[in-house]
Amino acid sequence: MALGKNYTAQDCSLAKALEVIGERWTLLVVRDAMYGVRRYSDFLARLDIPRAVLSQRLATLVDAGVLAKHRYQDSPPRDEYMMTPMGAELFPVIVTLSRWGERHLTTSGPSRYFLHRQCGTQLEPSARCPACDVQVPARDVEMLPGPGLSGLRSDPVSKALQKPHRLLDPIG
Amino acid sequence: MALGKNYTAQDCSLAKALEVIGERWTLLVVRDAMYGVRRYSDFLARLDIPRAVLSQRLATLVDAGVLAKHRYQDSPPRDEYMMTPMGAELFPVIVTLSRWGERHLTTSGPSRYFLHRQCGTQLEPSARCPACDVQVPARDVEMLPGPGLSGLRSDPVSKALQKPHRLLDPIG
Repeated sequence: MALGKNYTAQDCSLAKALEVIGERWTLLVVRDAMYGVRRYSDFLARLDIPRAVLSQRLATLVDAGVLAKHRYQDSPPRDEYMMTPMGAELFPVIVTLSRWGERHLTTSGPSRYFLHRQCGTQLEPSARCPACDVQVPARDVEMLPGPGLSGLRSDPVSKALQKPHRLLDPIG
Repeated sequence: MALGKNYTAQDCSLAKALEVIGERWTLLVVRDAMYGVRRYSDFLARLDIPRAVLSQRLATLVDAGVLAKHRYQDSPPRDEYMMTPMGAELFPVIVTLSRWGERHLTTSGPSRYFLHRQCGTQLEPSARCPACDVQVPARDVEMLPGPGLSGLRSDPVSKALQKPHRLLDPIG
């Protein structure tokens, strides 16, 4: 019996969300897009996946409205993939899941700190700023490297992301 | 080139979290365990997946410490799978992702409401109670069916979950 490609009989908004972002690697593509990665070649440098898989994941995210494709060069044709507002709303999912991973699956501390750029306060796991008492959208987040970032990756995009970086701003 | 089974070069607590709960169906197993499903046959009734896949996902979650296996009957041998405290901390991930799915992928409204049992207030998408100003742990959540719950599933476990139910409490 083959494993179904979707969860239509699951009757649940979580299942619907997983149809879009539950495929292996997809949430890491979303993570990198949140960090400001936009170009196919940059996603490829950051994620050790076959081109066909990356292309398919990007296409799924564009179809669902999480990413928007934008041609930035005509010859040869080159596209960028940019976070839509719908995609940017996945920021709390990424923070919540990362903090859970840190608490339970690592011993080296956070790999990234997320700060509210207006006040510099570190966000709670839910992406709320405790000082301002607001949910902080991705565009208002300053990301800093943490002690858990081992620097294993030496590609230029990963190097750029070892410095402080505003979420959603393009890399470089 | 085969797609890797893990994300070891990803250097990221999100990737580590996805190694545990990023596999297809795994987060729906976690969802059902959060609702109070404990028995293999009940997971099987709720999720339309092959037995081998369910067994493998349950084993991964037990190995990672998200679920704990508990023998409740010796002959024939029968095991329950219960949420650990580490697993229960995934509750905000489930709420956040469900609410995102509702906002963007459904038109029929929430399939479930999550209320703070101490005060009856509906939780924010981050699993925070706005009335009490606290993050609400799964054990303090009363779940009610919402308008988005179509009642497509007629198995006994799904029927039981169409009534109000305290999270983590066993079904039936």
